[in-house]
Amino acid sequence: MSLAHVYSYIDSQREVFLEDLFQLLRQRSISTQDDGVQECAELLARQMREAGIEATVMPTPRHPIVYGEVGPDGAPTILIYGHYDVQPPEPLELWESDPFNPVIRDGKIFARGASDNKGQLFAHVKAVQAYLKVLGKLPLKVKFIFEGEEEISSPSLEPFVASHKDLLKTDVCIFSDSHVQENGRPLVVLGLKGMLYVQITLKGANRDLHSMRAAAVPSPVWRLIHLLSTLRGEDGLVRIPGFYDDVRPLLPEEIAAVEAIPCDKDALCADLGIPALLQNRNGDDYYKNMIFEPTCNIAGLKAGYQGVGAKTVLPCTATAKLDLRLVPDQKPERILELLKDHLAKNGYADAEIEPLGFLTPSRTPITHPLVEVARDAVADAYGVDPYIYPGIGGAGPNYIFEKHLGVPCITIPFAAADQNNHAPNESMIVDGYFNGIKTGASLIHQIAAFYAAKK
Amino acid sequence: MSLAHVYSYIDSQREVFLEDLFQLLRQRSISTQDDGVQECAELLARQMREAGIEATVMPTPRHPIVYGEVGPDGAPTILIYGHYDVQPPEPLELWESDPFNPVIRDGKIFARGASDNKGQLFAHVKAVQAYLKVLGKLPLKVKFIFEGEEEISSPSLEPFVASHKDLLKTDVCIFSDSHVQENGRPLVVLGLKGMLYVQITLKGANRDLHSMRAAAVPSPVWRLIHLLSTLRGEDGLVRIPGFYDDVRPLLPEEIAAVEAIPCDKDALCADLGIPALLQNRNGDDYYKNMIFEPTCNIAGLKAGYQGVGAKTVLPCTATAKLDLRLVPDQKPERILELLKDHLAKNGYADAEIEPLGFLTPSRTPITHPLVEVARDAVADAYGVDPYIYPGIGGAGPNYIFEKHLGVPCITIPFAAADQNNHAPNESMIVDGYFNGIKTGASLIHQIAAFYAAKK
Repeated sequence: MSLAHVYSYIDSQREVFLEDLFQLLRQRSISTQDDGVQECAELLARQMREAGIEATVMPTPRHPIVYGEVGPDGAPTILIYGHYDVQPPEPLELWESDPFNPVIRDGKIFARGASDNKGQLFAHVKAVQAYLKVLGKLPLKVKFIFEGEEEISSPSLEPFVASHKDLLKTDVCIFSDSHVQENGRPLVVLGLKGMLYVQITLKGANRDLHSMRAAAVPSPVWRLIHLLSTLRGEDGLVRIPGFYDDVRPLLPEEIAAVEAIPCDKDALCADLGIPALLQNRNGDDYYKNMIFEPTCNIAGLKAGYQGVGAKTVLPCTATAKLDLRLVPDQKPERILELLKDHLAKNGYADAEIEPLGFLTPSRTPITHPLVEVARDAVADAYGVDPYIYPGIGGAGPNYIFEKHLGVPCITIPFAAADQNNHAPNESMIVDGYFNGIKTGASLIHQIAAFYAAKK
Repeated sequence: MSLAHVYSYIDSQREVFLEDLFQLLRQRSISTQDDGVQECAELLARQMREAGIEATVMPTPRHPIVYGEVGPDGAPTILIYGHYDVQPPEPLELWESDPFNPVIRDGKIFARGASDNKGQLFAHVKAVQAYLKVLGKLPLKVKFIFEGEEEISSPSLEPFVASHKDLLKTDVCIFSDSHVQENGRPLVVLGLKGMLYVQITLKGANRDLHSMRAAAVPSPVWRLIHLLSTLRGEDGLVRIPGFYDDVRPLLPEEIAAVEAIPCDKDALCADLGIPALLQNRNGDDYYKNMIFEPTCNIAGLKAGYQGVGAKTVLPCTATAKLDLRLVPDQKPERILELLKDHLAKNGYADAEIEPLGFLTPSRTPITHPLVEVARDAVADAYGVDPYIYPGIGGAGPNYIFEKHLGVPCITIPFAAADQNNHAPNESMIVDGYFNGIKTGASLIHQIAAFYAAKK
């Protein structure tokens, strides 16, 4: 019996493995709204146990971590990280089907969390289940850490990892998040962006007023417009002084890897319905910008009347939600200080600045030997070579594992590029789910072989 | 029997006249949301009939007009204008009591529409009722035109007035809207601002995206920020080229009238909870700005995630609702053209500009003889001289009556300055309601006497 038999078994179990995933997708787990998260953790642990994994729900100050392990003690170890919490599904009216009632259309599973991240973490659970079923036992130890707070910037993860170093001891961390190449080719990703998420609120009068008062009473909405216009130029560059100071210079190998990624700008623009890509420090080079460019995005803007038609009000408050995505070696805490200084110096000392999330950016060396092992494992499962990304646009907690466990982090996405994560009609491509299960099995096999060869 | 007996009768009917008003306030009539407007028109007509007025509900393309008349044919005529529609009550969570279940606290009636405008128009209905009850008949003709579209910029009113000139034939139009002086002294108001209300929408990609894409995909939210920052300076002045070109120079008599209005800036700021009033072309002179200054207000701003906590999304659309209040002789249609030209010239030719309302500003000559008659009538009812305002900050359809009926418009407000109209906890001062009823009776009496003396 070999890995090929595991692949065959996986192919034979498509209906069962889909229904098991659907069960997980039906369970709400909206971390920012405290909606169903505990119930989802318990369901996931139950499903892991059914797959042959020892799983337990471990409390944190807010949403629990699901920990699991399986395989021989003392063997080389893989730690699989994922998150079972999801983004809020709003705006609900733009979904074509219920976000918590998964359905398959056009070869895709539509549901909130289908790709981000339930469908991707679950592939590793099913990989272990298939491997055990066909080959009887694992050739190495596989550990799982699935958190319920990723979509709220993982506040409990770092304390948990820092205080459970023995439990989590591993040789490598594997993540499956984000998506494969637009052309369907798989990826091996070596870094993630960091993030500072802040909410900025300005206040005017102590109550909303009839808008006739706009001739005499200051408007916090106009002040917010002017405040925001100082943060980013029309050229797309961030204007907070010092923002770019800590950006790590790029290595020639990193640039070469990114330049090897094919990009059809016209197809991209056509898919998104935009006339052109953003210009910034790398011109409109899509992958260089996505991988290497820090950003200041307005994720939400709210003031005054939100309904249909006209209402003539002078609002008493105005709020912006900003997510600033950072690259090595920017630090979110430092960027927050720069932002505060900038606002105070520009007449906005009264702005209420509420930080809602900090994530440090990370990047694993492209020269680490496990990078090649991972590439071969992915190639075997997919039947095609992956591209190597030195980083990716998404943010995540990789740096926590790098820092506290001292091991490389490698991300291998299974979702398709049109997954619509964080947006209405999120989907997971059905083939990606099964390729993911095969990749999970292949990684177990190849990494075990790599360590056996080293002995 | 004299006017004094009418006043006494009004005082004797406080409980009955309050309950009659409460019945009207309980009926929802949110014109922008098509909520209860027809039902409210029918209720109001019924209440007018009970007061002795011949009343009828007349259809328009959207919300009906309630027309009424009473008094001898061929006599001098007063036309009372008002609106029975109300602003949306949102945000509901800021109301201390149900906006459609009126209650009295601290001498005020709290309900949506209590002051704007049901409580004020109803005072004139009750004035006729009291006058008829005590004196048996009216000394002149009183006509009523109550519309249900004022809060959506009165789209049907002008066509209706233009096509019913004989029905509406009058010597003067009387409005009761807005509020009396902060110190409680009544007002006689001779003009209203105009308005252009527009919704501006910018679009980016064809769907909301994960905010990692902000490094490569243009954000309509950032574009909206930059668009808006071109419309108005941090100095409060509107920067649309040509915006101020048609502002009518002020007459010395108008300036003198405004300078006679007392203003306690410190008390005003303390009440509003703001450190200082807005600076603009008249410095921080409250009344000159409120009466003579055109504005560009942001009444609503909406993009991306509006809920609690963090969501990392690159929104695909961003919207601002603007109300631009205009003064004579600015024209809303001309201002819209200037706005469109300005946006097109500044790189926003793709902005969707949806006009939601046009109102032309108006101003009755301060020298018209009925201004003095109105002042005397108000002084008799209130027992104190009113201030004369050449204009006021609110917008309204006065110009329609000026233009099509060729008569002066005089506004006499009954609400208190802290009425919170268009905002949560809107209220009508109980004494203002009864002073309003007396003023209505006094106007009938004094205007009839003025025309009798002329003969």
